[in-house]
Amino acid sequence: MKLYPSDDRSASFVSLERGEDLLDGLDRAVAELGLKAATLQVIGALEEASLGYFDPGASEYLTVSTGHVEIASGLGNVSLRDGAAFIHLHLVVSGPDGAAVGGHAMKGCRAFVVEAYLRTLAGPPPERKETPGTALKTWPAS
Amino acid sequence: MKLYPSDDRSASFVSLERGEDLLDGLDRAVAELGLKAATLQVIGALEEASLGYFDPGASEYLTVSTGHVEIASGLGNVSLRDGAAFIHLHLVVSGPDGAAVGGHAMKGCRAFVVEAYLRTLAGPPPERKETPGTALKTWPAS
Amino acid sequence: MKLYPSDDRSASFVSLERGEDLLDGLDRAVAELGLKAATLQVIGALEEASLGYFDPGASEYLTVSTGHVEIASGLGNVSLRDGAAFIHLHLVVSGPDGAAVGGHAMKGCRAFVVEAYLRTLAGPPPERKETPGTALKTWPAS
Repeated sequence: MKLYPSDDRSASFVSLERGEDLLDGLDRAVAELGLKAATLQVIGALEEASLGYFDPGASEYLTVSTGHVEIASGLGNVSLRDGAAFIHLHLVVSGPDGAAVGGHAMKGCRAFVVEAYLRTLAGPPPERKETPGTALKTWPAS
Repeated sequence: MKLYPSDDRSASFVSLERGEDLLDGLDRAVAELGLKAATLQVIGALEEASLGYFDPGASEYLTVSTGHVEIASGLGNVSLRDGAAFIHLHLVVSGPDGAAVGGHAMKGCRAFVVEAYLRTLAGPPPERKETPGTALKTWPAS
Repeated sequence: MKLYPSDDRSASFVSLERGEDLLDGLDRAVAELGLKAATLQVIGALEEASLGYFDPGASEYLTVSTGHVEIASGLGNVSLRDGAAFIHLHLVVSGPDGAAVGGHAMKGCRAFVVEAYLRTLAGPPPERKETPGTALKTWPAS
């Protein structure tokens, strides 16, 4: 993992090594930059992807796995969960025929080429709390 | 709807309540922040989605509706339309098998969990004007 | 192509003319803004799209072409390649039934309506270098 920060370190590009776990690599970038609240963008390609769909009935993630794919889109954020910086990232990936698959980035996404961008929100970070009726921790909405 | 603004209010995270209309909730965030020109990112999930494809022949939107989906990606902007702040948002959503559907966010997208990010463009906002040959109001390109 | 820059020109909206090549138009915006390192977001629609999947075995792009589509998502960056500013852009596009196709934006994407956003990274730009084992030039990751 290598950072390409702005002069004031309020934003940074990030490059991951081939084979690195996507979320692990981005977690290290967030820690090195000392971010607690930030927005995140990712493009590139993955050797394999694991994407989740949160089933609201069962309150659990269904998972889809892929082989080598383009990261057609990656959007996410950094906020606090249980007192620590936490990355929430959603991906759209696409295969050789372009067909697109989307979902919540799970552990097990392995970098081929990853170009990410982090920008801090210079203010109090949102804190994730349990949402009544689901197993999710989200930002309070009221 | 709850704002998580930066100290200088130039950017903000936004969390919507379950069941809120996506565009209505984001409109209220834009109004409360006083934004006229901004960029927008959204991830999360929707109880249902309504996505449009602008048919250039018929000059009207074709609409696709879904059940519960992940917001795999949401990208948009705020600019002026008929003198008022206007949100233009495109979404990619994905279902239990990950299959991705994209388009223009229409009224009728209902929040399950919505985590949005708005950042102002500190300058004159683009103003939407009618584009000859279509029913769309877009930013003049020359 | 028309720019809608912020007062300090650190960010800008961009509108492309109907029929303009997407990458050519964005290249002109990057040149006019004098950007060397920036993040990029795009929404709108294309008269036709050409999207690539980098096949890691053959070390070449497979290409998918489409007719008129929505740009459901466009995410990218600007950095240095062979000493010059270079745009790397990934797209998710969707047709009349919403079905989404993703990949690397190639020459031959023709604008219908394009609303882009560029924000500079005020710091040393990443420089693309050949990645051993592929035909790609990427940001060194260590």
